[in-house]
Amino acid sequence: MSAIYRIALDAMSGDHGLDVIVPAALTALVQYRDIELILVGDTEKVQAALARHSQKQHASLRHMISVQHASQVVDMDEPPAQALKKKKDSSMRVAIDQVKLGKAAAVVSAGNTGALMAMGRFVLRMLPGIDRPAICTAMPTLHGHTHMLDLGANVDSSAEHLYQFALMGSELAQAIDDNAAPKVGLLNIGAEAIKGNEQVKAADALLQGSGLNYIGYVEGDDIYLGDVDVIVCDGFVGNVALKTSEGLAKMIADKLKTNYSRSVLTKLAGLFSLPVLNRFRAEVDPRHYNGASFLGLQGIVVKSHGGADSLAFANAIGIARTEIIKKVPQHIGTHITELLDLRQAG
Amino acid sequence: MSAIYRIALDAMSGDHGLDVIVPAALTALVQYRDIELILVGDTEKVQAALARHSQKQHASLRHMISVQHASQVVDMDEPPAQALKKKKDSSMRVAIDQVKLGKAAAVVSAGNTGALMAMGRFVLRMLPGIDRPAICTAMPTLHGHTHMLDLGANVDSSAEHLYQFALMGSELAQAIDDNAAPKVGLLNIGAEAIKGNEQVKAADALLQGSGLNYIGYVEGDDIYLGDVDVIVCDGFVGNVALKTSEGLAKMIADKLKTNYSRSVLTKLAGLFSLPVLNRFRAEVDPRHYNGASFLGLQGIVVKSHGGADSLAFANAIGIARTEIIKKVPQHIGTHITELLDLRQAG
Repeated sequence: MSAIYRIALDAMSGDHGLDVIVPAALTALVQYRDIELILVGDTEKVQAALARHSQKQHASLRHMISVQHASQVVDMDEPPAQALKKKKDSSMRVAIDQVKLGKAAAVVSAGNTGALMAMGRFVLRMLPGIDRPAICTAMPTLHGHTHMLDLGANVDSSAEHLYQFALMGSELAQAIDDNAAPKVGLLNIGAEAIKGNEQVKAADALLQGSGLNYIGYVEGDDIYLGDVDVIVCDGFVGNVALKTSEGLAKMIADKLKTNYSRSVLTKLAGLFSLPVLNRFRAEVDPRHYNGASFLGLQGIVVKSHGGADSLAFANAIGIARTEIIKKVPQHIGTHITELLDLRQAG
Repeated sequence: MSAIYRIALDAMSGDHGLDVIVPAALTALVQYRDIELILVGDTEKVQAALARHSQKQHASLRHMISVQHASQVVDMDEPPAQALKKKKDSSMRVAIDQVKLGKAAAVVSAGNTGALMAMGRFVLRMLPGIDRPAICTAMPTLHGHTHMLDLGANVDSSAEHLYQFALMGSELAQAIDDNAAPKVGLLNIGAEAIKGNEQVKAADALLQGSGLNYIGYVEGDDIYLGDVDVIVCDGFVGNVALKTSEGLAKMIADKLKTNYSRSVLTKLAGLFSLPVLNRFRAEVDPRHYNGASFLGLQGIVVKSHGGADSLAFANAIGIARTEIIKKVPQHIGTHITELLDLRQAG
C-alpha cells in the first residue's frame, strides 16, 4: 500500500472562503490520488459547500475528505496577537492543531498571514537552531522558477537571519526541484551609490564560508532571469519586490488589453492573437505559483494568496503535498543541527 | 529675449559614450529651442563625434553647442572615493564644475552613479537642512506616472531622512507636474506578518504632521496604480523595486516575443498585431522615463541609465531642462528652510 499524505485545509479563510476552497479540494483530489484532505470549519457550512460543489465525478473522492469542526474564523485584518489569544476554535487554529496532533502532515490556509504565522509558531514551534520563520515562494523566471525568501515575515533581518533563510531556501529548492546544489544568491543593490547595507555585507561573509552553493550578490532584475535557484533577502525588501511585481504585471496586462480593445481592427488582431496571448498568459499565470511556504517551523504550513481562485488554491495544496513527500522541515532541521554541531566543535 | 537654459553633458561616460550622447544632444536641441549644451570631454573626440553625427538639418544648431575639454573619464565600476580623488579632470567632474562656475544650470551624466553622487555632493554641496541626497525617478503607471525616491543613494534611511525625501519628492512633483498638492505615500509592507519597520513607523508619524499631502502607507503594487504622485522609501528597497521591475518587464517582453515567434501562424498573428504591440510598447517604453534626479544638492544633477540610447539620453536632458525652468533646488531649499524655522520657533 502506497503512502497517503494528509493535509488540513483552513476552509473558512481567504477572500472567497468555502466557495473557492471546496472546489480546490476536489480539484486537488482529482489531480493527486495519494492525498486526503481535512476540511476545517463550520461543519454545516462545509457540508453544504461540499454538496453544492460536488459533481458526479467527485463521488468516488468523497471518502478522501473529512470535516473537522471549528466554530470561529480569523478575520483578514485581525491583529495576530488577538487571533492567537481569542480564536482558539477558529478554522485556522484547528487546522494547524491537526498537524500538531499528527492527524495531518501539513496545513494550507488563505487567511490572515500574520495570524497564520503567529499560530504556526505557537502550535508547531520553531525548529531548534532557527530563530525566525521565513516566507518563501517560487517566482516565474525566463527559464523556470526561483525560490525567494523572506517575503514579509521579518523586517530588519540580521546577517545571521539572512544566513538561516539561505539555508532553509536551499533545502526547500533541493527538495522541490530535486536539485542537489541549488545556486543561492543574496539580494543586494549593485552598481549604485552605496553597495549594500551592513547586514547584507555581514551575511555575505557568513555565506561565503557556508558550504551552500552560494554565488554571491544578485540584484532585483536577477529574480526573473532564472540563473539562480534561491534568492535571499530581508522580509521588507522581499515583500516590496513581490508586490511591485504584482502591480507591474497587472499594469502591463491592463495596458495590453486596452490597446487590443481600441477599435474593431485591434479587436480582430487580438482575436487572431488569442492562441499566442493565451499561451503567454498561461506561462506567467500567477495561479501556478500560488502557495508560500512558512519555513523554520516544526511542521508544514502553506499560505495561499487571500484572493486565490480554486485553481490557485489547488496549487498551494500541491506544494504542501510535495513538502510532505520531500520531508522539508526534517531536512532543514537536520541541516541546521549539523551546522550548529560543527560550530560548537569548531 | 527669452531665457536660454544651459546644460552641461558628461559626454564621455555611459556604456556607449559619445556615440549616444552626441546624437542625443542634437535630438534635444531640435526638440527644445531654448537650451544650450556644453559637451564635456576630450575635445578632439567630441569634435569628431559631432562631425560624424551632424546632419544638414543640424547646421543651424551647432552654435548652441560648445565643447569643454576634460582629459579623463571615470570608469563605470570605479570606487566613488577614488574617482573623487583622482579624476579631477574627468568629463564627469568638469561637467559638474560647469554648474558650480555658473556656466551651466544643470548637468546630465550616464556615468558611474556613485561617483556622480560623490562629486555632486563635493562640488555643489547639500542644501542646508538636507542630510542626504536622494535619487528620484518617474515610473509609468496606469494613469500617468509616479515619482519614486530614494532609489539607491542611501541605505538604512532614518525616519528623518525618509521625511526629507518626502519633502523633496513633493517639491519635484509640484514643479514637474504643475501639481499644487502631490499625494505622497510611504512605502510599507501592508497585510503581512509584521507591519513595517521602526524607521517607517516613525517616518509615518513625522509625515502625519508635515503639511504635505500625505496619504499614508502604500504597498509595492501601488507604484503602478497611479493613485499616488510621490512614493517614498529607503534606497535599498527602492533600488530593489526598480531593478525587479526592469527584470520582470524584460521577462514579459521576452516571453511575448518567444510566443509570437513559435510558428508561421503565430508570426502572422504578430504581424497583424504590430500596430497594437507598438503602441503598447511606446506606452511602457522605459526610454521615456530615463533620467533620475539627484535631489538635495545645491544644483541640478540628472543621471541617465548607463545603457541609454540617444532617445533615452535626450529624455534625461529634457528632465534637466524642466528642473531648471521650475527651479527645483531653490524650491526644495526654501521649503526645508521654512520648515526648520518652524521647528525652531515651535
